Amino acid sequence: MRGEATYRAVVEYDGTEFNGFQFQPHLRTVAGTLETALSRLFDRPVKVTAAGRTDAGVHAVGQVISFVAHDAFPIEKLALALNSMLPRDLSVRAGARAEEGFSARLTALDRSYTYLIFNRNEASAIARRWSAFEHRPLDLDAMRGAAAHVVGTHDFRTFCGVLPERGGTVRRLDRLEIEREGDFVRLQFRADGFLHRMVRVITGTLIEIGTGRRPADAMPSMLAALDRRAAGLTAPPQGLYLVEVRYPSFSSRPEGGLRSPLAFVAG
Amino acid sequence: MRGEATYRAVVEYDGTEFNGFQFQPHLRTVAGTLETALSRLFDRPVKVTAAGRTDAGVHAVGQVISFVAHDAFPIEKLALALNSMLPRDLSVRAGARAEEGFSARLTALDRSYTYLIFNRNEASAIARRWSAFEHRPLDLDAMRGAAAHVVGTHDFRTFCGVLPERGGTVRRLDRLEIEREGDFVRLQFRADGFLHRMVRVITGTLIEIGTGRRPADAMPSMLAALDRRAAGLTAPPQGLYLVEVRYPSFSSRPEGGLRSPLAFVAG
Repeated sequence: MRGEATYRAVVEYDGTEFNGFQFQPHLRTVAGTLETALSRLFDRPVKVTAAGRTDAGVHAVGQVISFVAHDAFPIEKLALALNSMLPRDLSVRAGARAEEGFSARLTALDRSYTYLIFNRNEASAIARRWSAFEHRPLDLDAMRGAAAHVVGTHDFRTFCGVLPERGGTVRRLDRLEIEREGDFVRLQFRADGFLHRMVRVITGTLIEIGTGRRPADAMPSMLAALDRRAAGLTAPPQGLYLVEVRYPSFSSRPEGGLRSPLAFVAG
Repeated sequence: MRGEATYRAVVEYDGTEFNGFQFQPHLRTVAGTLETALSRLFDRPVKVTAAGRTDAGVHAVGQVISFVAHDAFPIEKLALALNSMLPRDLSVRAGARAEEGFSARLTALDRSYTYLIFNRNEASAIARRWSAFEHRPLDLDAMRGAAAHVVGTHDFRTFCGVLPERGGTVRRLDRLEIEREGDFVRLQFRADGFLHRMVRVITGTLIEIGTGRRPADAMPSMLAALDRRAAGLTAPPQGLYLVEVRYPSFSSRPEGGLRSPLAFVAG
């Protein structure tokens, strides 16, 4: 009789045409697409667990999944075999056997997300798929000053879409850095965990501060309000990327940073 | 009575969902989409001329169009007004009045294209939209040695898809540089003009040389054959970008190089 094994893999997707990660009947989801391929590969139903349940339209370059299946599969062929069955906008790398009891969600130490804003006067057809567009100039100093107030351990209820059914709304936000490079403004978040839409609500609020629609010193009172209505609009999904998940034994960060095709086009 | 004026603009598109630049009835083309918007904006039919008639699936960050229309339009609002009418995967910048007689095609001095190959063992869902995938290691020295033979003024009939109805097949290729950065191999071409599919046929041939399927010294005899069957396969369209068109008075190159969203995601 065959034994069972726990597997893990790093997953990358262009989120544009997925209805988010989580399985939903009759909808194209990342989990559903992966489970269909894995169930065919292992010849029995396979359910995946993800480090982060990204919403519709959100991208990932370092999502991590785990699943339990029979232990007879040659692990060095997992990514190749899966990629041959997956659609163009979803791929897998670094397939590996994980220790027993490993869970992509529960074993994770922290998650890192990046939010990209394309900030210039004229829109860009290529950037539009991969970033939010803000044509008003952003005051990065004002945004950074406001961001400093949310770093640390706080009750993030103000910046939460749907409240969690279990557990609280306290999270430890370890990093929120804001930089400009050319026409792009990049926000980098790292936390032990994120509430539903937390990155996008914080980002939307910071954009309102950066364009002067909200005062730069409004953040502490918003955080203290513990009320979603105190925060700004939710920034759109196409600017958001799940970049890295860290575990005691490995990290999903793309080796050598994410190599972007577009970075090298103009030369 | 109103006078007429010549206009020019730089056009950017994600070519994935366009049936190429050139107008075709009942198909989604770049020219057709632009002409629909321009005709609405100027309230009479407008026809556009492009610097390069890119094929289906080919991208552009520095395409140039010209058109003639009435001279009453406030030029500083052209890009903004057009972008508000264009779909997400097509945008316009640097709208300007051009000198009388200016033609995006005929006035151009040269064109630059970039071809991107994603060259590693495991596929990438995000890179797939923007590059060709080659999982076998590429020998760049062999490719560069072969490329050196096609730089210069030659009859490029061997590397031409559909032969031109008028004019010959002699072109002056000024630049063909091949570099690797991380998992990407970038080929940069500049010529006074390109024949149909010339970049993609040269690239496909160089990929065959780079993977050892053709001898590295085969280029001179292929060029001399003046026969498409002597060359390699046509590389796929999603790796190709029209990057720059130069004119006596301006260039369409994106300012500061193309700023890519994806370059900054992983940080």
